[in-house]
Amino acid sequence: MVSAAQQQQALEELGRIRKSIDNIDSALIWILAERFRCTQQVGELKAANELPASDPAREQQQVARLRQLAHDADLDPEFAEKFLGFIIAEVIRHHERIAAESN
Amino acid sequence: MVSAAQQQQALEELGRIRKSIDNIDSALIWILAERFRCTQQVGELKAANELPASDPAREQQQVARLRQLAHDADLDPEFAEKFLGFIIAEVIRHHERIAAESN
Repeated sequence: MVSAAQQQQALEELGRIRKSIDNIDSALIWILAERFRCTQQVGELKAANELPASDPAREQQQVARLRQLAHDADLDPEFAEKFLGFIIAEVIRHHERIAAESN
Repeated sequence: MVSAAQQQQALEELGRIRKSIDNIDSALIWILAERFRCTQQVGELKAANELPASDPAREQQQVARLRQLAHDADLDPEFAEKFLGFIIAEVIRHHERIAAESN
């Protein structure tokens, strides 16, 4: 049984960690915004130069690279791969919009 | 019709942007690793102090905050909310593992 005083102390510690999480989330949002600026450029470049929208070889390299980085950072490589898939799905949605607008 | 020379130039430009994307992805992986270190601490703190695993009020605040940040960063707020959901689903999986190990 945990005392009310102990729980109070735990809640204070929780608040401290949550401030770090909020800072980290702000960093993630701004970095993601920059990533989508880059992929927006990629989409426009591909559309303007009749380059294929998808590039499976590039994607395979990215997966391998991120899995290795995740391993080095003590992050689950499976999660890193799912994360990349999540981001790329959004990029494809953006690119489809660019292609539809340029048609 | 785009000439081979133009396509070649586009491919060089593409390579340049992809290097930026790779740098950004490295940053994302390391920052995510730090975020999971924080949420690991949160999970242990909650388990040790009999605090409830989920906190809907905190989650609502995070969603509102990230949507506002996304708006400021010119990122789709819907995407930011989905992104947070994606990360939190992984955090919950980690916390369930911590709870199972401490039982």
